Amino acid sequence: MIPIAVDAMGGDFAPGNLVEGVGKALDTLPDLGPLFLVGDKEKVSRELRRIGKFDDDRIQLIHSDQVVEMTESPAAAIRNKPGSSIAMAVDLVKQGRARAVFSAGHTGAAVASSVLKLRPLPGIEKPAIATIFPSATGRFLVLDAGASVDCRSRHLAQFAVMGEIYCQYVLGIESPRIALLNIGEETTKGNGLTKETYQLLEKMRSRGLNFVGNVQGTSMFDGNCDVVLCDGFVGNVVLKCSEGSSQFFSGYLKKYIQQNWLRRFGAFLARNAFKDLKAIADHSEYGGAPLLGVNGICIIGHGSSCPNAVANALKVARRAVEEEIGEHLLARIDHMRINSADKKRQTADREKESCEDSA
Amino acid sequence: MIPIAVDAMGGDFAPGNLVEGVGKALDTLPDLGPLFLVGDKEKVSRELRRIGKFDDDRIQLIHSDQVVEMTESPAAAIRNKPGSSIAMAVDLVKQGRARAVFSAGHTGAAVASSVLKLRPLPGIEKPAIATIFPSATGRFLVLDAGASVDCRSRHLAQFAVMGEIYCQYVLGIESPRIALLNIGEETTKGNGLTKETYQLLEKMRSRGLNFVGNVQGTSMFDGNCDVVLCDGFVGNVVLKCSEGSSQFFSGYLKKYIQQNWLRRFGAFLARNAFKDLKAIADHSEYGGAPLLGVNGICIIGHGSSCPNAVANALKVARRAVEEEIGEHLLARIDHMRINSADKKRQTADREKESCEDSA
Repeated sequence: MIPIAVDAMGGDFAPGNLVEGVGKALDTLPDLGPLFLVGDKEKVSRELRRIGKFDDDRIQLIHSDQVVEMTESPAAAIRNKPGSSIAMAVDLVKQGRARAVFSAGHTGAAVASSVLKLRPLPGIEKPAIATIFPSATGRFLVLDAGASVDCRSRHLAQFAVMGEIYCQYVLGIESPRIALLNIGEETTKGNGLTKETYQLLEKMRSRGLNFVGNVQGTSMFDGNCDVVLCDGFVGNVVLKCSEGSSQFFSGYLKKYIQQNWLRRFGAFLARNAFKDLKAIADHSEYGGAPLLGVNGICIIGHGSSCPNAVANALKVARRAVEEEIGEHLLARIDHMRINSADKKRQTADREKESCEDSA
Repeated sequence: MIPIAVDAMGGDFAPGNLVEGVGKALDTLPDLGPLFLVGDKEKVSRELRRIGKFDDDRIQLIHSDQVVEMTESPAAAIRNKPGSSIAMAVDLVKQGRARAVFSAGHTGAAVASSVLKLRPLPGIEKPAIATIFPSATGRFLVLDAGASVDCRSRHLAQFAVMGEIYCQYVLGIESPRIALLNIGEETTKGNGLTKETYQLLEKMRSRGLNFVGNVQGTSMFDGNCDVVLCDGFVGNVVLKCSEGSSQFFSGYLKKYIQQNWLRRFGAFLARNAFKDLKAIADHSEYGGAPLLGVNGICIIGHGSSCPNAVANALKVARRAVEEEIGEHLLARIDHMRINSADKKRQTADREKESCEDSA
């Protein structure tokens, strides 16, 4: 049996959608359990009764009376709300009672709790969120999508290994194609960080990494890579710009369609094409984005996760536990020798950082 | 009269679209001239004859037999092709024969030529490309969109002034709203660079900059700001991701519409809505993106610039010359005291950079 902790209060439709998603997951995955629902006992119970799962002995309720609000800073939330649903859900993993945690709440708080409580895996210095994007031929991961905003090249090299392992063991891609997000395809392109990272990834290619070179924001949707590497600042910008520009254009298209009856009628006839398009951008199928690199499985859901998305996220969490991705990650990081080969660089970086602090 | 140099060989449809665009500009702007067309004399002459402008005495042909190919590295192009059309067009500005230069060719080569030959304006350390995006209420500038990929906070502060002046004098926005691209709206959000830049921009607010705070990739399209600041790496990613994701979704929509006759018929009825949508994304109205911060006006066009785009770019160049944006920029940079107030910081940065070099 695989025990998973769920932050029942996280997300725009909590605890309703969370509880319903947990119910769906229990129905389809017989080896899940216990599922710890962490949140306001009364509210969660009411939802459990609604879906007829109140007496399911694979569910355990854990009361929490604090919720991290979306407007709070992660640091303040962790400091001031040790009894929040997300903190307590992560605690269950730390204590070994759960093998994974899922939250659709405050991403920053989920990341901060997981990093602080579970700690990074040995050999990994910074965690990364791997977000799934649709591509012309399937999907690809962008990491980091916002967990680690200031990175050096070796951190991106570590992200490469995390993405590789996640693709192999959870998404079932045998030899994931790893690309570096850059401003040109040529090897000499980029800023200081990407140029340095390119060199590191080249070295890792000789140790078996399927590094396919630079990719640009225009071509990453073409389906030529499975993992796109960037620091968390850039990854977050990628995520939000893609969302922003699609929303912008779809908003205008709606507006223009409304302008006269002929357009409205035409769009009505073609409505299933729009429906199909919407399905591509639908997050629910992917379930959630894993926070990789910490000592434990943490899956982060979209704030608006529907019950289906929650159930799929739990499926992903279960798979990550079952496949022991942490173990594979450790072995692969060791094999890649990102850290040992770069001890000198790390010392130089520390010196540089102390320079920066004094600047 | 305002003399402008045109790289007649730059762009996917050169010299045809360039020559045609120049013809259009001459027809509508009587104070333009001479317009120096730099390129293969024979090819350019043929195009001029085609549009009936071969004998126009406001056009001067300057022969160049080298073209920078899109695949060349900017550095190599500048080194190996001193007689390229872009290099010679920039030379005309350097020599004072032209007041501005326009190129729709290799962006990197145009930037490198302009920076090397025209030099940055005093008080400005790095140039920036200001690219125009459509927004829900009009348009906004993103700078830098790719000229300067490694930036410190004071460079972004200088970009703020460049964007402000360009909006005021060329786009006619009285008090441009300047925003910082970040991963959250809160003042404490961001990476090292954006946090430091936020502080600098706050200070500049007290000297009259209309700094409106952080903006995210999702909300920048809402029309709440006129200028979005970021380093050239991030700006380039923003540009390409927005393009990539819109292309991705429009490609899928087309595919889904083709799936059956009902959808095709519906889309046919609603076709004008799609046409209107296409018009928003149309670059030609804006003409081109200015390279700001160098001692001279340089406008960079999209590789696929149509004649209309070329004519509009020349109109923008003319306006920038007429309004003497360089003078205003100098005065404003001086007023903002970004550099003088930060002499100490620059010294520290230089120390830090020397640390980095040794790392």
